Amino acid sequence: MAVIRFNPWKIAYKTPFGAVKENEVATFTIEVMAEEVVAVKLVIHKDFQTEKIISMKRQGEGQFSCEYFFNQRSGLYFYHFEIQTKKGDEVVTELYGATKEGGEGQKFSPFERVWDFQVTCYKKEEKAPEWYRNGVFYQIFPDRFANGNPNRIVNSPKKNSYIYATEEDDPLYVKDSEGEILRWDFFGGNFKGILQKIPYLKELGVNGIYLTPIFEANSNHRYDTADYFAIDPVLGTEEEFKRLLDTLHENDMHLILDGVFSHVGQHSRYFNVDGAYGEHTGAYHDRHSPYYSWFTFYEYPTEYASWWGIKDLPEVNKADDSFQQFIYGKEDSVLTKWTEMGVDGWRLDVADELPDTFIKGIRKNLENFSEKVLLGEVWEDASNKISYNQRRDYILGDHLQGVMNYPLRNSVIDLLNENKPPESVAKALMKLYENYPADVFFNNLNNIGTHDTERIFSELGKHLKKLDLAFAMMFVFPGIPCIYYGDEAGLTGGKDPENRKFFPWKNIDQDIYDSCQRWIYFRKEHALLKEGDVCFFYGPHLFGILRYSVNEYIALLINPGNYPTTVNGNLTFIADESPLIKEVHHRFSNRTVKENSYLLITSEQKRKSIEKYRSMTNN
Amino acid sequence: MAVIRFNPWKIAYKTPFGAVKENEVATFTIEVMAEEVVAVKLVIHKDFQTEKIISMKRQGEGQFSCEYFFNQRSGLYFYHFEIQTKKGDEVVTELYGATKEGGEGQKFSPFERVWDFQVTCYKKEEKAPEWYRNGVFYQIFPDRFANGNPNRIVNSPKKNSYIYATEEDDPLYVKDSEGEILRWDFFGGNFKGILQKIPYLKELGVNGIYLTPIFEANSNHRYDTADYFAIDPVLGTEEEFKRLLDTLHENDMHLILDGVFSHVGQHSRYFNVDGAYGEHTGAYHDRHSPYYSWFTFYEYPTEYASWWGIKDLPEVNKADDSFQQFIYGKEDSVLTKWTEMGVDGWRLDVADELPDTFIKGIRKNLENFSEKVLLGEVWEDASNKISYNQRRDYILGDHLQGVMNYPLRNSVIDLLNENKPPESVAKALMKLYENYPADVFFNNLNNIGTHDTERIFSELGKHLKKLDLAFAMMFVFPGIPCIYYGDEAGLTGGKDPENRKFFPWKNIDQDIYDSCQRWIYFRKEHALLKEGDVCFFYGPHLFGILRYSVNEYIALLINPGNYPTTVNGNLTFIADESPLIKEVHHRFSNRTVKENSYLLITSEQKRKSIEKYRSMTNN
Repeated sequence: MAVIRFNPWKIAYKTPFGAVKENEVATFTIEVMAEEVVAVKLVIHKDFQTEKIISMKRQGEGQFSCEYFFNQRSGLYFYHFEIQTKKGDEVVTELYGATKEGGEGQKFSPFERVWDFQVTCYKKEEKAPEWYRNGVFYQIFPDRFANGNPNRIVNSPKKNSYIYATEEDDPLYVKDSEGEILRWDFFGGNFKGILQKIPYLKELGVNGIYLTPIFEANSNHRYDTADYFAIDPVLGTEEEFKRLLDTLHENDMHLILDGVFSHVGQHSRYFNVDGAYGEHTGAYHDRHSPYYSWFTFYEYPTEYASWWGIKDLPEVNKADDSFQQFIYGKEDSVLTKWTEMGVDGWRLDVADELPDTFIKGIRKNLENFSEKVLLGEVWEDASNKISYNQRRDYILGDHLQGVMNYPLRNSVIDLLNENKPPESVAKALMKLYENYPADVFFNNLNNIGTHDTERIFSELGKHLKKLDLAFAMMFVFPGIPCIYYGDEAGLTGGKDPENRKFFPWKNIDQDIYDSCQRWIYFRKEHALLKEGDVCFFYGPHLFGILRYSVNEYIALLINPGNYPTTVNGNLTFIADESPLIKEVHHRFSNRTVKENSYLLITSEQKRKSIEKYRSMTNN
Repeated sequence: MAVIRFNPWKIAYKTPFGAVKENEVATFTIEVMAEEVVAVKLVIHKDFQTEKIISMKRQGEGQFSCEYFFNQRSGLYFYHFEIQTKKGDEVVTELYGATKEGGEGQKFSPFERVWDFQVTCYKKEEKAPEWYRNGVFYQIFPDRFANGNPNRIVNSPKKNSYIYATEEDDPLYVKDSEGEILRWDFFGGNFKGILQKIPYLKELGVNGIYLTPIFEANSNHRYDTADYFAIDPVLGTEEEFKRLLDTLHENDMHLILDGVFSHVGQHSRYFNVDGAYGEHTGAYHDRHSPYYSWFTFYEYPTEYASWWGIKDLPEVNKADDSFQQFIYGKEDSVLTKWTEMGVDGWRLDVADELPDTFIKGIRKNLENFSEKVLLGEVWEDASNKISYNQRRDYILGDHLQGVMNYPLRNSVIDLLNENKPPESVAKALMKLYENYPADVFFNNLNNIGTHDTERIFSELGKHLKKLDLAFAMMFVFPGIPCIYYGDEAGLTGGKDPENRKFFPWKNIDQDIYDSCQRWIYFRKEHALLKEGDVCFFYGPHLFGILRYSVNEYIALLINPGNYPTTVNGNLTFIADESPLIKEVHHRFSNRTVKENSYLLITSEQKRKSIEKYRSMTNN
């Protein structure tokens, strides 16, 4: 039996690190130690295609190498190794593949199904515009942020809806005994409110806003679009929206919108179940409706395909040409209208449910403009997600530029609530980094909470120091940090609707605000946090993120536990050793990290202390 | 077998008509026709006491009479007759008692339980003040009538309550799957709104307002009193209430309030389940609370007596001396505070559940002021209601002066929806008239709908002409008409919450308004409709109300059916024949009443036509 070692996270074994570009060549090197090595083979296949077997050549003592030319276009490639060794007369075949956690692999017997290592092969670099890369985003659920009218007057309240009596009220759905929404509930946040809060956002350090849907709809969340060309009148007028957009731009801020193209509302102009948009507009009342082909009727008009079976949300057939033209194809398409007005980017709702060609069409539309960004809602590792029996091309080029980084949020919670040991968390993040094309990873919209999750403060047991660590992780992580409105003010709550409380303007938690603002400012002061490489490290009860370039570094070391921990040369860095890493390790050594706390070191400090030392010795 | 006839509705058989006063003498006369009459006896007993048997003396051919001295104090007396006749040698005993419908009686065999005739014996006349007797009332559910603030701003909205988005919204309770209210819903009507609508009310012809509860409470209906000494801040301030009251008085209008003394809210200052009124105020948190003795705890503090088992409404022990002192006894009692401020009267909520002594105490308090009125919520014939195993003294003197006349509403609906033939309706109303002390009958607050019933317009199938007939009946009926806000504007809806829509200020149904206003003005022009005696009459498909005095009359003849009907001398008047009745009958004869319509004749018309004839013949 041979001793075999391969770890794609280290340059010694696989180069380049992580994803490769189409037609790039990668080198694989594996260590095999045995009495006699008969053959070492790289067994590699493109996703859903047949295997290729490549003999690896001995390079030195126990090292076998080969190159692989990624010439089968972009997509996922999977590989493992086949090793034949001889012990006496006996030839033994062993397989070597991946572990679930990633990094160093493991042996498999020939009778097992091998877990392959993944290489993501992308079509082109997808570096998002500078403004976005430099962004600190803030997600606003418009009904719940700020009402710019005096006396909390609500713009054009919708008939048969409820308005919360006070902004301090707890959100509550009004449902019948079957759980169907009987009536929508509004606080009445609006564009004027956001406009008035621009100074607040600037002071906090935010320079980008992601707004959840703003088009005419029935609900308070507006994911049930009624008219893609109209601003919901509860939020204000189109002029007010334009004014908000212009004012943001004047303040060097940017705005991205939520594009909800998977389904529409049943009360929409397009489906028009209740005839509110006129008798012959929608598909429900008129088979000759221009929108009829958008929908899939099983039995006209009452039985139709709907999102997750929710009748309120008729699903749109995204393959329908007229729908594609309407959304992004035509000269006066939805996307063109709003992007032309100045919207800086789009976040595609349920990107899983949008066909690749549809996303590609949207991207193509945006390419007509400059400096726009396209993101998608994907909850898992977007590199290898299979949805609707299809491996998705989201992040391989010409589609999404980045996704909402929910895996980061999961890791933050796993670490800080000690659901998983630091080692597992470090590996999970490293695997994500490995699988994503680097530019996409750096384009991701990171979050520690959104309108679809529990509030991070509640998730962390309302633990102030843990919340500070969560902010720390998000702001030190590669990608664009995005604060869910109110997380910086101490909002609490479980899932929807508790996570959609109104912003507590009269009751902002100053400690939390200070913590969040401090991390924002820290990030903005350090370009390294935007573009620097990343490496994760861990020790017993310790987790670290290292951001670095050739000469610089910033290292954050977190103790998620409830007892102080001292670093005793026992940190493991998931990367090759280097003088820089050694220095970081050395600087942390013998230092104690307090419970639920962190240490932060930067090359700048070092330099300054050296300068200080020099200036002292020069004296 | 004898032929027997007795009808307490006719003076020939019983005099005086209807209820008698303590120590008054009544004369009973019965007709018995047989071969030989052996004995005729009046068998009479006071409620729950033993029978007295009085021999009746032959007065003329087949007539037997006796007097009865009502000297056993006020209360109900019940009687029937025992008749012995001889046929050949055989003596036959027959009993004669009442029918369910009232009026002429029926025979019973000696083996049956006889239904007795009822005589109500009252302690004293209870003529309500002139202003009240001249009233046309208007019931306002304050949250739903008018908001006097600009932009529909709601005064002091309650935390965790909902405000309706528009005044046109349909009311809806927010309940959990067990039917418990999760959150209260408000439109935000207020005192300022009522104040602003005084000109509207005056134009309509209203001169009295009955407000459902206005004291601090959690709910929108405010039957869950939280503080008897505080105005609910959603309605406005005490100053605003005082201003409303004063302005009403300046406009010759009066105001009565809803006194809710059977229970309080669990969130009240007195019970204080959630400690909102301070930790030691209420009975729930403090056995030494001054309010502890008000409540009945089965297991302290969680198990307690509550109104109809609704935990939200802890029941008060009305026999508790401190509660009695608090409500009406002390110098600074609840009743004194508001009555001193100028409130003109009280309507006691669930009077059934207030002990007679409690109601008497309230009445005594009001006697300290002049010209106040005390009414009660009783849904049935208040003369003989038994509640909690007790015959109630409501209307016998020194208690209530009148009750809400729900039986009238029932009769109106029975007649107009043709649920019952006109004869039954006429008899039901006549029986009510017979049973009530006349003054109480003339004090009753009549209604065709309240906050506790379906909207009359809906009840009548949105039939405009039937609604006009319903107004006609209420405004021609003895007692004080009370319009439920919005009934004059075309509001529709079933029971609570549909019957509590916001007043449709932008969408008043002009036809309905005109109908209501016309009847109000008609009533106000004719004093006879306030104090004149009443008699009901009927024919096939016809129902009539005759109001009359010695020389005057007004007669309303209604055809509730869907076909025209001609009067062919076939009207039956439930009263003795008289020249006046003959004239009325004559004037209706041969006239046709259109479907769902009425004829209205007055002695005034007759007089005028005679005068006209005279002036013509004099020429």
